[in-house]
Amino acid sequence: MNTIYLDHAATTPLDKAVLSAMRPYLSEEFGNADSRYSLGRNASLAVLSARDKITRLICGNHGNLYFTSSGSEANSWALKGVCAANFGKKMRIILSAIEHPSLIRAAEDMAAFGFETELINPDSSGIVRPEFVEKALNRGGAAFVGVMYANNETGVIQPVNPIYELCKTAGAFYFCDCVQAAGSLPLDCTFADGISLSAHKFYGPKGVGALWLKRGVKISRLISGGQQEGGLRGGTSNVAGIVGMAEALSLACADMGKTEERVRTLRDRFADEVTSKIVGARLVGDKVSRLPSNANILFPGCRGEEIMMALDMSGVCVSTGSACSSGASKPSPVLLAMGLSEEDAAACVRFTFGRENTKEQADFAAKAVINAVKMLRGD
Amino acid sequence: MNTIYLDHAATTPLDKAVLSAMRPYLSEEFGNADSRYSLGRNASLAVLSARDKITRLICGNHGNLYFTSSGSEANSWALKGVCAANFGKKMRIILSAIEHPSLIRAAEDMAAFGFETELINPDSSGIVRPEFVEKALNRGGAAFVGVMYANNETGVIQPVNPIYELCKTAGAFYFCDCVQAAGSLPLDCTFADGISLSAHKFYGPKGVGALWLKRGVKISRLISGGQQEGGLRGGTSNVAGIVGMAEALSLACADMGKTEERVRTLRDRFADEVTSKIVGARLVGDKVSRLPSNANILFPGCRGEEIMMALDMSGVCVSTGSACSSGASKPSPVLLAMGLSEEDAAACVRFTFGRENTKEQADFAAKAVINAVKMLRGD
Repeated sequence: MNTIYLDHAATTPLDKAVLSAMRPYLSEEFGNADSRYSLGRNASLAVLSARDKITRLICGNHGNLYFTSSGSEANSWALKGVCAANFGKKMRIILSAIEHPSLIRAAEDMAAFGFETELINPDSSGIVRPEFVEKALNRGGAAFVGVMYANNETGVIQPVNPIYELCKTAGAFYFCDCVQAAGSLPLDCTFADGISLSAHKFYGPKGVGALWLKRGVKISRLISGGQQEGGLRGGTSNVAGIVGMAEALSLACADMGKTEERVRTLRDRFADEVTSKIVGARLVGDKVSRLPSNANILFPGCRGEEIMMALDMSGVCVSTGSACSSGASKPSPVLLAMGLSEEDAAACVRFTFGRENTKEQADFAAKAVINAVKMLRGD
Repeated sequence: MNTIYLDHAATTPLDKAVLSAMRPYLSEEFGNADSRYSLGRNASLAVLSARDKITRLICGNHGNLYFTSSGSEANSWALKGVCAANFGKKMRIILSAIEHPSLIRAAEDMAAFGFETELINPDSSGIVRPEFVEKALNRGGAAFVGVMYANNETGVIQPVNPIYELCKTAGAFYFCDCVQAAGSLPLDCTFADGISLSAHKFYGPKGVGALWLKRGVKISRLISGGQQEGGLRGGTSNVAGIVGMAEALSLACADMGKTEERVRTLRDRFADEVTSKIVGARLVGDKVSRLPSNANILFPGCRGEEIMMALDMSGVCVSTGSACSSGASKPSPVLLAMGLSEEDAAACVRFTFGRENTKEQADFAAKAVINAVKMLRGD
C-alpha cells in the first residue's frame, strides 16, 4: 500500500537534495564549529554561510538570526527572553488565542514570575482582527504581542502588517510565529520585531529552527552556555541541521510561486470534491486569506479522529488538530476560539498538501474520505 | 595531509553504524512522532525505544529521561527549571567553579530573578572536595548543587558519591553534568538527582542531548510547547538524532572497558613522551582520578594558542580551554580556579584521545608537539 501523505503542516519529508547538503557534516566534516583548527573552521564557515543565506532569504540581510533546535524553542525563547529582559517593567503579554502551544504555554510559565497574559480571540473565519489587538494595546503598558503569520490548524493568514503598525504606535514588541508560513509564503521581516522558523516544516531536517530578531532587541538567554549564537544561545552548533535548514529554505524559495500554485490546485481539487460530495461538509476558516496547502474540513456529525483512523487504513495520512496536541484528544482550542462548538471542533480534519503530492493522490484521498464518511455515517 | 584528531572532548566523529541507524529517519520514516497514523507511530516507537535503551544503560530503568537539543540545554534546563519550580523558596545555587558555562551562565541569568549563587573552587589538582561542598551546604536553606562528573578541560573525575550523600543529608538537589563522562565511564544514576548527556561527545550526532531526573523531581519547562517529553519540553522530536544518540551510547557501553584501556594507553604513551622530552612540561590536574582520554599539559613560557595553531599546520587537532569558550581568548576559568596563574593557564593545551586514534598517531602527535614547542621557544 502506498502512503499518501497529506499532513505537511505536521512535518514534511526531508528533501534528498537537503540530505546531500548535510551529508559531509554527518561524516568527515564533523568539527565543532567553535574549534579553531581547520576542521572546526570548516564547520564554522558552513554555519556562517547558512546563517547568511537564510537571513538574505527572509529579510534582505538585516537583523540577527539565531539558530535554535525547533520552532517551539524559538517561540518560547522569544516570549520568555523578552519578558525576562523586561522583568522590572511589568510587561504585559498579549497573544492571539490561536497561537501555538509553545507561545501559549510559555506565557502560562511566565505567570509564576508575575507576568499577566491576555488572549485575543479571532473572528469566526479564524482571523485575528487588528481592531481586537488595538483594543488590548489600548489598556496601556509595555507589551509583548504574539500573532502568528499563518495558523497551523486552519492555514488562515493573519493581517500581520496592520498589527505591526499598531504595535509600533503603541511601543509594543511584535512577535510573529512564521513556522507554518516559511517556505510557502514570501517572508520579509519588515512586518515584525521577531519571527520564528522551523526547518522540518519546509522539507528540512527535524531538530533545527531559528529566531530572527530586529537589531537592538533586548532578550535574555533561554539556553545558557558558551559563545555560540553571539553568546545568546549555548550548545554546540548542530552543523548538519543548520546546513540542511539553509538548503531547504533556498529550495523552497527558489520556486515558491510555481510550487504553491500547484499545491493550491491540488488542495482546491480535493476540497471541492469532498465538500460537494459529502452532505454538510465545509471548509473551516477563511477561504481566501489562507495557505495554499491547507484544507481544514468540518464533517458534521462525524468524529474527526475516526475519519483519520479510517484514512490511515487506506494509507492516507491526515490529522485532527495539530500534531503537537494530538496526544491529547481534547477539542482544538484554535477551533473553539473561532466559535465552533465542541462537537463541531471534534468533527474537523486537517488535510495539508505538499510539493510531492500528485493529482492522482488528491483524487484517491478524496474518494477515501468520501467512503470513510459514508461508512462512519452508516449511509 | 592526514588529520590526527585529538580533540574528542570538543566533539567526536559520528560513528558510521550510528549514521546507519539514523538513516531511515532521514528518509522514508519522516513522520512526526506526535502524529497518530502509522507513519507517526513508527517515529514514536523509535523515540520510545531509544528512551528505554538509554535509561537502561544509565540507570537500570528508573527515573525519567527527557530528550533535549544538547548538553547545554539539559544543564540550563535543570538549573533554571528547578529554581523556577522553587521560585518562592529562595533556593540558593551552589556550583563548583569548574562547571560548564551552561550552568555558570544559567546561574548568572537567574540572578535577575533574585537567585544567589555561590561558586566553590576545586583544589589545585582540580578536585572539588566534598568538605568544600559541605561548608557551602551548612550555610542553610534549600539549594541546587551542581558538581560535574568529569571536567571537560582537565578530565578530572569528581567525588560524586560523597557529594550526593552530603546533598541528601542537607535536603539539597544534586545535579551532575555527565556530558564528558558519558560513554567513557559507566553511569549509574544512583549518584545524583539529575544528570545531563550530550550525544556528540560519544560518537553520536550533534543537536541532541538528554536530561535524566529522579522520579518526583519538580521542574518547570524551559522550552514550552506541546505534549512532547511528558509535556515538559516542547518541539517536534528530532527522531533521527534521538535514534542516533541511543545507538551511540549502546556502542560506547558495549565495549567500554576495552576501549577505554586502549585510549588510556595511547594517552599515557603520548603524555609520557611529551612531558619527558619537553623541559618543564607537566600534566595539569589529578593524574589518577581522570578520564582515560584526557591529557591537559602545561608548557611553561609558551602560549597554548600558538602551539594549537602550529599543530593545526601539521594536521593535529587540539584545543586550549574548552571549545565552548575558545571563541573568547581569555585564560580558562577552570584552570584559574585551580590556582594557576594567568600566564600558566594560557600555556596549557588539551589533548583528548578517542577510539579511532592509533599508536602511530599518538607518536606523530608527540613529535609534532615537541617540534612546535622547540620552534616557539626558539630552541
